[in-house]
Amino acid sequence: QWMMLDWKPRRPDMLIDPFGIGKIVQDGLVFRQNFSIRSYEIGADRTASIETLMNHLQETALNHVKTAGILGDGFGSTPEMSKRNLIWVVTRMQVLVDRYPTWGDVVQVDTWVSASGKNGMRRDWLIRDGKTGETLTRASSVWVMMNKLTRRLSKIPEEVRGEIEPYFLNYDPVVDDDSRKLPKLDDNTADIVRKGLTPRWSDLDINQHVNNVKYIGWILESAPLPIVESHELSSLTLEYRRECGRDSVLQSLTAVSDASIGNLGNAGHVECQHLLRLENGAEIVRGRTEWRSKHAKNFGIVGHVPAENA
Amino acid sequence: QWMMLDWKPRRPDMLIDPFGIGKIVQDGLVFRQNFSIRSYEIGADRTASIETLMNHLQETALNHVKTAGILGDGFGSTPEMSKRNLIWVVTRMQVLVDRYPTWGDVVQVDTWVSASGKNGMRRDWLIRDGKTGETLTRASSVWVMMNKLTRRLSKIPEEVRGEIEPYFLNYDPVVDDDSRKLPKLDDNTADIVRKGLTPRWSDLDINQHVNNVKYIGWILESAPLPIVESHELSSLTLEYRRECGRDSVLQSLTAVSDASIGNLGNAGHVECQHLLRLENGAEIVRGRTEWRSKHAKNFGIVGHVPAENA
Repeated sequence: QWMMLDWKPRRPDMLIDPFGIGKIVQDGLVFRQNFSIRSYEIGADRTASIETLMNHLQETALNHVKTAGILGDGFGSTPEMSKRNLIWVVTRMQVLVDRYPTWGDVVQVDTWVSASGKNGMRRDWLIRDGKTGETLTRASSVWVMMNKLTRRLSKIPEEVRGEIEPYFLNYDPVVDDDSRKLPKLDDNTADIVRKGLTPRWSDLDINQHVNNVKYIGWILESAPLPIVESHELSSLTLEYRRECGRDSVLQSLTAVSDASIGNLGNAGHVECQHLLRLENGAEIVRGRTEWRSKHAKNFGIVGHVPAENA
Repeated sequence: QWMMLDWKPRRPDMLIDPFGIGKIVQDGLVFRQNFSIRSYEIGADRTASIETLMNHLQETALNHVKTAGILGDGFGSTPEMSKRNLIWVVTRMQVLVDRYPTWGDVVQVDTWVSASGKNGMRRDWLIRDGKTGETLTRASSVWVMMNKLTRRLSKIPEEVRGEIEPYFLNYDPVVDDDSRKLPKLDDNTADIVRKGLTPRWSDLDINQHVNNVKYIGWILESAPLPIVESHELSSLTLEYRRECGRDSVLQSLTAVSDASIGNLGNAGHVECQHLLRLENGAEIVRGRTEWRSKHAKNFGIVGHVPAENA
């Protein structure tokens, strides 16, 4: 159903958004923003990193709320939420990447929200190539409300429902819900365990908590290097279970499925299970990643060593 | 002299750069690009982080070279440099921050290059508030050429000089050269030593080397927390001495001058000396930072606890 979203080659309508902070389209229910991929948003293989894509998701979500005129004083909270000390917390995120954009590419991000059960909100995103309209990435997330003082989850108060419900667009999820349970890893089931991971000052968001995008970096810290080097992330599922503050010390665990660790570099498709936990064992994030071989599609690039600037 | 650069309130001329990748101004010798500060570019206190500012410097430098039509296949290398396996490496960077922009602000970055001695190039930047024209940040850097195969420094070949010299704008440096020598710290002279710092996969640039902006994060890892919390960075000087690859394990050393560590949070102005070194003692970066108290100017914000989104 999400494919109904119209896509038009851009250029004339670009001028309607000269400051590049996005605009509402599609009868007021879809927010659209364009991003030019910058040199510092790409990784070792010149394509946008998964963190960059997730940053663009976060940015469009916040600008959607802001442009709709329902941004309170917080990071995405509405005025009625702010009054009640409620904040949004993400509980689940699924991202499917068909193709990563490269430096200089312009991508167009569409985002919209729907109801999710009785007390949740689903937010979906569709990232397309700004020139061709080709779908690059689809993402779907579930959010609930938390009282920032008690740190307990909250129902959606009627007054808040009144603010956000007019924006609900009841499309089917842009990503089919991957209902396979994420197993709980431990030292015995994990193939790789990285310990002693600590937030850097720059990982903290405005509430001095680790921003949800930063967890990806730690998860990838325990992904086997042969995979990270020869494969690209094609799918990411995260279940957020607990917050993490600036004094937390984390452990990152990864188990590799469907392949023997010794021959990972040559596998066409690899699936991994992940866990981020505190040193006392408390679970922060469970995750699953899927990887596809880079060489299968990018053989033209092999052997080309680009220069660096320091 | 750099103040001669004209500044005009923007809006009409914005349309000339609809894709936001910048343009040449000032008789073809100054490159100008605007950035809207995004939610993921701000830190715990809602202002752009120093890394964000440095990323914008890098991005405008590269887009300057690209827009001038002299970008080879590398990260800022010209065609004649690429032919000779030459890359730019930064040896010195000085940044003065008068005010940090916040989420949603639009900043205008101007950059230009000049000769620096016989075999170097100086690149300067001026960051202004896009609405008021107020100077926010000035930065100056020195670059030399390195052969990417031998990793030795190189003179500027005549053919390369022919490519870049037409773009030299012989203004005075935008930052007065701080000629005070950066002392070499060691375990005895440092107040804080952080060990075991390792690059994350996402710290690597397209040549699998740590990007120069990432060093800032490690330097700040050993800055005393009372300073980082109550002060903001007002000045940064870095001397880059050696490259750092993905297997490097680093140590970050900081010495605090002009103040007793016990009472740092209350000092109006603090100066620190820094060193990043490998475990074998080899120096990667020497640095000096200066900090000014946040409370002195931002007392209105104290007590305001913003919400987060997970």
